[in-house]
Amino acid sequence: MFSGRMNYHDYLQIDKLLGAQKLESDVQGNHAHDEMLFIIVHQVYELWFKQIATEIESVVKIFSQDRVDEKHMDLIVARIQRVVTIQRLLIDQINVMETMTPLDFLEFRDLLIPASGFQSFQFRILEARLGLRRDARLKYNAADYDQSLRPEQRPLMAAIEKEPSLFDCVEKWLERTPFLKMQGFDFWQSYKDTVEDTLQADLKIIQSNPSLAPDDRIRNETIVHQTLASFGKLFEEKQYEEARANGEWRMSYKSIHAALLIQLYRDQPVLQLPFRLLTALQDMDEGFTSWRQRHALMAKRMLGAKVGTGGSSGAQYLKDAADKHKIFSDFFQLTTFFVPRSKLPKLPKDVERELGFKFAQD
Amino acid sequence: MFSGRMNYHDYLQIDKLLGAQKLESDVQGNHAHDEMLFIIVHQVYELWFKQIATEIESVVKIFSQDRVDEKHMDLIVARIQRVVTIQRLLIDQINVMETMTPLDFLEFRDLLIPASGFQSFQFRILEARLGLRRDARLKYNAADYDQSLRPEQRPLMAAIEKEPSLFDCVEKWLERTPFLKMQGFDFWQSYKDTVEDTLQADLKIIQSNPSLAPDDRIRNETIVHQTLASFGKLFEEKQYEEARANGEWRMSYKSIHAALLIQLYRDQPVLQLPFRLLTALQDMDEGFTSWRQRHALMAKRMLGAKVGTGGSSGAQYLKDAADKHKIFSDFFQLTTFFVPRSKLPKLPKDVERELGFKFAQD
Amino acid sequence: MFSGRMNYHDYLQIDKLLGAQKLESDVQGNHAHDEMLFIIVHQVYELWFKQIATEIESVVKIFSQDRVDEKHMDLIVARIQRVVTIQRLLIDQINVMETMTPLDFLEFRDLLIPASGFQSFQFRILEARLGLRRDARLKYNAADYDQSLRPEQRPLMAAIEKEPSLFDCVEKWLERTPFLKMQGFDFWQSYKDTVEDTLQADLKIIQSNPSLAPDDRIRNETIVHQTLASFGKLFEEKQYEEARANGEWRMSYKSIHAALLIQLYRDQPVLQLPFRLLTALQDMDEGFTSWRQRHALMAKRMLGAKVGTGGSSGAQYLKDAADKHKIFSDFFQLTTFFVPRSKLPKLPKDVERELGFKFAQD
Amino acid sequence: MFSGRMNYHDYLQIDKLLGAQKLESDVQGNHAHDEMLFIIVHQVYELWFKQIATEIESVVKIFSQDRVDEKHMDLIVARIQRVVTIQRLLIDQINVMETMTPLDFLEFRDLLIPASGFQSFQFRILEARLGLRRDARLKYNAADYDQSLRPEQRPLMAAIEKEPSLFDCVEKWLERTPFLKMQGFDFWQSYKDTVEDTLQADLKIIQSNPSLAPDDRIRNETIVHQTLASFGKLFEEKQYEEARANGEWRMSYKSIHAALLIQLYRDQPVLQLPFRLLTALQDMDEGFTSWRQRHALMAKRMLGAKVGTGGSSGAQYLKDAADKHKIFSDFFQLTTFFVPRSKLPKLPKDVERELGFKFAQD
Repeated sequence: MFSGRMNYHDYLQIDKLLGAQKLESDVQGNHAHDEMLFIIVHQVYELWFKQIATEIESVVKIFSQDRVDEKHMDLIVARIQRVVTIQRLLIDQINVMETMTPLDFLEFRDLLIPASGFQSFQFRILEARLGLRRDARLKYNAADYDQSLRPEQRPLMAAIEKEPSLFDCVEKWLERTPFLKMQGFDFWQSYKDTVEDTLQADLKIIQSNPSLAPDDRIRNETIVHQTLASFGKLFEEKQYEEARANGEWRMSYKSIHAALLIQLYRDQPVLQLPFRLLTALQDMDEGFTSWRQRHALMAKRMLGAKVGTGGSSGAQYLKDAADKHKIFSDFFQLTTFFVPRSKLPKLPKDVERELGFKFAQD
Repeated sequence: MFSGRMNYHDYLQIDKLLGAQKLESDVQGNHAHDEMLFIIVHQVYELWFKQIATEIESVVKIFSQDRVDEKHMDLIVARIQRVVTIQRLLIDQINVMETMTPLDFLEFRDLLIPASGFQSFQFRILEARLGLRRDARLKYNAADYDQSLRPEQRPLMAAIEKEPSLFDCVEKWLERTPFLKMQGFDFWQSYKDTVEDTLQADLKIIQSNPSLAPDDRIRNETIVHQTLASFGKLFEEKQYEEARANGEWRMSYKSIHAALLIQLYRDQPVLQLPFRLLTALQDMDEGFTSWRQRHALMAKRMLGAKVGTGGSSGAQYLKDAADKHKIFSDFFQLTTFFVPRSKLPKLPKDVERELGFKFAQD
Repeated sequence: MFSGRMNYHDYLQIDKLLGAQKLESDVQGNHAHDEMLFIIVHQVYELWFKQIATEIESVVKIFSQDRVDEKHMDLIVARIQRVVTIQRLLIDQINVMETMTPLDFLEFRDLLIPASGFQSFQFRILEARLGLRRDARLKYNAADYDQSLRPEQRPLMAAIEKEPSLFDCVEKWLERTPFLKMQGFDFWQSYKDTVEDTLQADLKIIQSNPSLAPDDRIRNETIVHQTLASFGKLFEEKQYEEARANGEWRMSYKSIHAALLIQLYRDQPVLQLPFRLLTALQDMDEGFTSWRQRHALMAKRMLGAKVGTGGSSGAQYLKDAADKHKIFSDFFQLTTFFVPRSKLPKLPKDVERELGFKFAQD
Repeated sequence: MFSGRMNYHDYLQIDKLLGAQKLESDVQGNHAHDEMLFIIVHQVYELWFKQIATEIESVVKIFSQDRVDEKHMDLIVARIQRVVTIQRLLIDQINVMETMTPLDFLEFRDLLIPASGFQSFQFRILEARLGLRRDARLKYNAADYDQSLRPEQRPLMAAIEKEPSLFDCVEKWLERTPFLKMQGFDFWQSYKDTVEDTLQADLKIIQSNPSLAPDDRIRNETIVHQTLASFGKLFEEKQYEEARANGEWRMSYKSIHAALLIQLYRDQPVLQLPFRLLTALQDMDEGFTSWRQRHALMAKRMLGAKVGTGGSSGAQYLKDAADKHKIFSDFFQLTTFFVPRSKLPKLPKDVERELGFKFAQD
């Protein structure tokens, strides 16, 4: 017990860690001071990627059970939030990289060709685990993305792509939500009726309001009609599936409804942590987007119109990926369909009881 | 409805806002460029203080009800976490202030005497609302703190000090916890037994382990005995109240137990958000501490051994306050009494049911 | 002198400042808690914009003199760097705004229509002062940008657009650089010769290297030829002016050369602070870009596919502006034309003397 | 040249790097999820320490020459500023560590005893290189600090302590400043006269001002007399050396004067970058202080009143070190002796010429 002889130096494998920086400029006999920074910045990234992967894998594992124990909800949320906290470092770390000026980078840049950050196997795997699908990946240098992988890495990549991703797990978990129909209450029908009634009432007010200028009336009518049409796409399964086939949505019809329920009734005790989870997943998506955007800015500054060390326009790739490699973009779109709390259908008392804690109901 | 004619400029009262910077150096006919920064940095602080006060007041209001509706737990936590997010800005903002060099500050510093950040009435009120007691406040310039207030401000200050603070509310809320004794299960007794059994077992191993060097044995025995004595202080109400009278603890005996229960069994659904709340309160306390420490560093740098514009050694005051103006220091101490999850007494099944959601129990 | 009776409360005009938050939801009798946050976040932005404008105006003023006194160089750089430090707060402040959930925003969002952040007059002026030209501005809601201004604001806007902007000042200052031709040394000719010699030598090595695989040879030859062509555009005034007319460059031929000289010979004492200035200007441009990108992400999240309170797709506008409203994009492109220090033409001794300090030459 | 076959994976030694995390809880057959975070956070710290050490060593090397080439000034400043940028990450990284709750830490904490962050050899060396003297180091666990080193580490430590530290280099560089007496101008005498004249004039005004209340007069007289006494300590070598022997100052008499000259006349071209250097050194000192303070807060929270894994009260050690392990505290004190620019003795024209650039003087 208290007799350990653990030593900081051995425990953290300091010798191995601090022995892993070999400057290529030194190998070539032409020491470039800033190459150490370049190596260490990238190594720190890889260590953080490992940590992020550790969290995502643990969350996927908990989610892979048939039923997620409510006791684990806070843990799941905490681990996604930890990823978000780490992402802030990833972004700020670019400020450190930018203390290297483009001219100093030139001192050793050519030695690294064609190595590229795009070759980070860990990050490719991480994207797959999060739920980035092979066919949604951007091309890189006009080549399929796994051309950047070593031959021996491809089978592992392919295997991971077949396992359930975080996206898949969240989708399934949402689909299992028991609250869409409960105690005779049909959340979806009730929500649909409310929205339509509200919008029809709005329309009447607009059409009968004498003080409204003609162009204001037209503008307002148009907004109401557009809103009605947009809600239609979410209310009608067939329309939704068409939109989904067109790539406008990714999640299943039922899971989108569950996500909306959670957002709208997030105050109910049983939905408080699910709401936090959806929020944390959006934060994480936003974090990767911000990191890619910031990274693209740096690449542009460091290289000008030059190609990256991997021969591609890294800046453009990162910029495009910032938009297109999002995982949970459905959640961001969902906001369109919110109505203010005051207009939400009120839950029946017995439904509310079900969504509360046992101890409070006795 | 959609006919608003709201304008950004009027809504935000931009004219008033941007008309509130009058440089004293201009009044004196000797323009000092950096005085604008000085004013704006302080005004931004005051705006953020107003926001923090808004959050704290709203939380105190929710807490002031006889029973806190579980539906509000996530809201309470979110508002404290918002304060923590704002605090990060408060701290980073000091980097902006430090772009003013001490020499530039000297250009207008004497004009401000004896004005001082210590005169921020909002911040004094905020401290009182959080729970800083009059008798726990540090002296400032060897004078009672409300000498820094204007005569007309003192009655309001006194009134607020009589209202329940956030500390009071949290203490009361903890005391009401129904889970300390439930379904015949006595959390406290069970916890006490476990800790004592574990420590006694440790002691036996130490005393009978032949491979332990004599001085290791003594060191280990001492640790166990100290730990036992320390737990005693928490297990025995009389000892606790003595320690409390000495200022070692501030919260009531029962509320400390409730806080410990929440920490140890935080995975139980009904305790997940209470755990988040305790964490957020600690984060907030830490945030004020960090801000005061960072502020003290800046004051030291800006003034050297000179006194602040208010005539005090602001740096020393801030440094002392960082330690002594903490509100929830009890929660930080509580960590001493944690035992690893694997050694925690297991909750009886029927107790666990009570701590879960209604829907899951049917 | 030491007899001032200055008071914090009066000096900072606290009453005015803290009296400038009127919640429209309160006016409508339907208090929305988060509206206070919304107002304060925007007011803090406006205060920081005022500070940024103060710095930019002061720099423009120093630059407007016929000759910038070398004694002011560090001051100019420090003020731009201060802006960059403030920008970090602007970006992080979005994290505070995002603690407001979209559902909470809905509680008062409709009340603000059609007010919009786009109506910030200060920011529009700031953009003009930095050097954003009227014809380079993106349309907003398909309308010319000054439709967003109040009629009484337009004359001031028009007047400011006629004054020299920061961009103009920097361009003129670069054009005045005495170092392009000095002591018989022609920086530009010398640089051109070096680049061409180096590239021709590279070409020979490629063509005569037997160990190079055919496709590697072709790839390498192509790179060298492209680089030569690209340098041509910078070496030949006519080609440069054509590219400039096409919008590929904005700065004058001579000022671009001066900027390149500063970058390449930044170690020379007289160029150290000019180099810092170019760096700081790029940092500032990057800061505005990052802020707009981050802002766009938040707008997307807050509104989904809904239009902003101003009736536009604010998110899309911000995203486009992030790229297109850059001021000093020429400096980012310039990196393309750097060569490693080791290949730079060495400055003649007498030129080096001129670029050093007087005291060191005696 | 362009024929490299460099690969990201090999270049960064990814296998070695990602193979260096062995969880002791796994070794013991009792996996603790958060131990990975614990290891990676510490490994990232060690990588950043290596980078900081790289910068400090390079600066010490440049400084070790008999004469620091003015061409290197910006480089020196940039490298110290890079350290400051890295320090921001070190501090923010504690937020990541704090996502581990104290209860989760308990799951593996005992396994690490008696390893401790205090055993980081890199950091101990870094402190020595910066200039922390053996006799200024705080005791740790009542033992001399190098008891924490392994026997084989002590000779290296001792050797490094004999080499010139950054502090030594800066002190020597300041002492060499040629500007204290130049062209017949004696900076120090001139400054001393100005200060005394100003203060005597102040005294007369105070004593003859009929509108001053008696206690204001006394207060003001006292301030002036104290200020005079305090300046005396800096003006008289004997007094200064006494104060230095008492530990009130660390730097030599001449170097302190040079630092003051740089601060006061920082606008002179030749002093602009030296001023930046002094500022950057203070920023770096402040960065280490903030990091230690933030670290101490975390340790307190994680362990409560428990001892650290190394058996000491780490929190207290860190807190004390934050104050006492400062290197350039002299620079912070120096602010006390600034006078506003408007009261500074004006430099003679020929002295100003010497402090400017050669090209501008012709």
